[in-house]
Amino acid sequence: MTPRRVSILGCTGSVGRSTVALLDAAPPGRFAVVALVAGRDAAALAEQALRLRPEIAVLADPEAGPALAERLAGSGIAWACGSEAVLDAAARSADWTMAAIVGAAGLRPTLAALRRGGTLALANKEALVCAGEVVLAAARQAGATLLPVDSEHNAIFQVLETRDPAAVEKIILTASGGPFRTASRETMARATPCEAVRHPVWSMGAKISVDSATMMNKGLELIEAARLFPVPESRIEVLVHPQSAVHGLVQYADGSLLAQLGSPDMRTPIAHALAWPDRMAVDVPRLDLAAMSRLEFFQPEPGRFPALRLARQALQAGQGATTILNAANEVGVGLFLQERLGFLDIAAVVEECLDALGAPLAGDLEAVLALDAEARREARRRATRRAT
Amino acid sequence: MTPRRVSILGCTGSVGRSTVALLDAAPPGRFAVVALVAGRDAAALAEQALRLRPEIAVLADPEAGPALAERLAGSGIAWACGSEAVLDAAARSADWTMAAIVGAAGLRPTLAALRRGGTLALANKEALVCAGEVVLAAARQAGATLLPVDSEHNAIFQVLETRDPAAVEKIILTASGGPFRTASRETMARATPCEAVRHPVWSMGAKISVDSATMMNKGLELIEAARLFPVPESRIEVLVHPQSAVHGLVQYADGSLLAQLGSPDMRTPIAHALAWPDRMAVDVPRLDLAAMSRLEFFQPEPGRFPALRLARQALQAGQGATTILNAANEVGVGLFLQERLGFLDIAAVVEECLDALGAPLAGDLEAVLALDAEARREARRRATRRAT
Repeated sequence: MTPRRVSILGCTGSVGRSTVALLDAAPPGRFAVVALVAGRDAAALAEQALRLRPEIAVLADPEAGPALAERLAGSGIAWACGSEAVLDAAARSADWTMAAIVGAAGLRPTLAALRRGGTLALANKEALVCAGEVVLAAARQAGATLLPVDSEHNAIFQVLETRDPAAVEKIILTASGGPFRTASRETMARATPCEAVRHPVWSMGAKISVDSATMMNKGLELIEAARLFPVPESRIEVLVHPQSAVHGLVQYADGSLLAQLGSPDMRTPIAHALAWPDRMAVDVPRLDLAAMSRLEFFQPEPGRFPALRLARQALQAGQGATTILNAANEVGVGLFLQERLGFLDIAAVVEECLDALGAPLAGDLEAVLALDAEARREARRRATRRAT
Repeated sequence: MTPRRVSILGCTGSVGRSTVALLDAAPPGRFAVVALVAGRDAAALAEQALRLRPEIAVLADPEAGPALAERLAGSGIAWACGSEAVLDAAARSADWTMAAIVGAAGLRPTLAALRRGGTLALANKEALVCAGEVVLAAARQAGATLLPVDSEHNAIFQVLETRDPAAVEKIILTASGGPFRTASRETMARATPCEAVRHPVWSMGAKISVDSATMMNKGLELIEAARLFPVPESRIEVLVHPQSAVHGLVQYADGSLLAQLGSPDMRTPIAHALAWPDRMAVDVPRLDLAAMSRLEFFQPEPGRFPALRLARQALQAGQGATTILNAANEVGVGLFLQERLGFLDIAAVVEECLDALGAPLAGDLEAVLALDAEARREARRRATRRAT
């Protein structure tokens, strides 16, 4: 077996570090690392590079060259820095790329890797939510394969038979329900950032934890799913499943419901994408169903969690509306975390922005980024008005 | 699409009737029926034949000719009767055969169909338990494909990736736990046939309902699974799951656990086998996880349910031992249903027979049938001794 040549865009973030750990633990000769790309942490990148021996190590920060050069001196590993170097690294020939640069900053490198063809493991949610149609068009043109790394989408990918899309009746995304699953609307209205980021199952960053508390995270995943899988939005459902053991399900026309289950550990979906269509051994805790003793499922409550409805509306309206939804939500969550906006106001600001800006066309990356910026300005204006 | 040419061996039994109903409801031109084979019910067979228009309708009962001929008169459908006619029908050229003749009577026709090649949907449990190695050798020789129809095995088949058997860590068969799941040993010792056949989820015949109550049904399924799938007995587990929503699971080396869920309706696994590798639409109730609200899983209790241990021992000992296990169990269940043996004595008789007869070699069908007969005599002797 020739080694699979892999690159990681965003190697010092949470998904990036898990990917590095899997490569580090893999049998020698199974993988060869082409490029490791990070933002500004020269020390962390150099440490990974000295272990994985990539062809090149790259930092986006244009000032970080000397720090990186010093740490890699004598290693024989090439290095570079700056945003052009990031794009060059993403475009380097590789079989497999992990796209794990968070936020809009990841869009251009993700597109550069996609245009090269091969397989792209997608952990950058914004790519599909904010610029989904642009990303999908690039993948189609290059004949690239997109593998979802988000645990829910990876779960669905594992049990989705694409031979006959008509046999797929529906896709079910599970949601933990977040810290306010059983909270009253009054409690939610008064929620502090500290309460909102206390996720019951997954350990995640502040932004995604707040998204989980509002269930906008599931709304963004609904948009991702509709773009990734050959199933229209009307056939994608969300089920609240507090134990987060079942990550996703697919209902087939013969009555079969296939599901992927697992511990809440990102190494499983990352390893699935790394080894696909094979599988690789990973040292994560196995799910012990008898020890869990029960799994529960509930319909989401649209009254307390309007984010799901907003995501569906945006998806129906098209690419421009999902760009607005994502941008306004990011602004709203940011202000909430600074205690400058109420918890329930996050969705309210998103809804106002969607109403105010409509669903403009955004056919290429420049148009998407311009709309993203406009939506952020609009969201800040509206949030300020609410806060005063 | 050319029609798939299908035959049904055992068309008037429970699985047979469900298969007929699916063929009857399928879009015209998708299937063409070659042979319908039943035991002795001329009226039921003729009714099915007049609807499905097979090339030939066959009864095993050698006396049933006139009754069948009269009902098919003028239809242009050929008919025959007797055991040779059954074997001829099974050997007729077809793409797909449902093997659903219950008990040892189904063994010869199943082998005849297998030797013809093509795809065999296997609902006859005895084939794999009583004569598994003979059946598997016949399938290998003819290059036939075996599709499991038992809901648990069909579930596992649906989520089992055979690309790399080493990536399969374990297979999990679920068991409802039967009517005595939470009963005391004292209650079980006094159990009547009427109590034992009250299955909490599936509606089934008396024999399999008693097997479910002793959990010998899961023992037989463990043997089937070890013969069907490229996984040794030590990596096949049983989990008690009273809601019977999850029918089977496969644990992979990357931490993923894939599962098939569905309503307890045999039409789903039959349709899966009928349409495989595609899927067909079936009008069965969809599983509503939110309506069920909870799924539970427990480790089986070996103290109250020794059948699982006996099945594992027999499997480890080899083909002869599983033939004995199956035969002794059939005798034990039969006597229990006649109120001539206690409920807990069924497994005790099986264990005594396994101890007494050892694990003789049974390399071909004649040897298997002779051992089967010997084990039945031994079981009757030992049961009589216990009852007096």
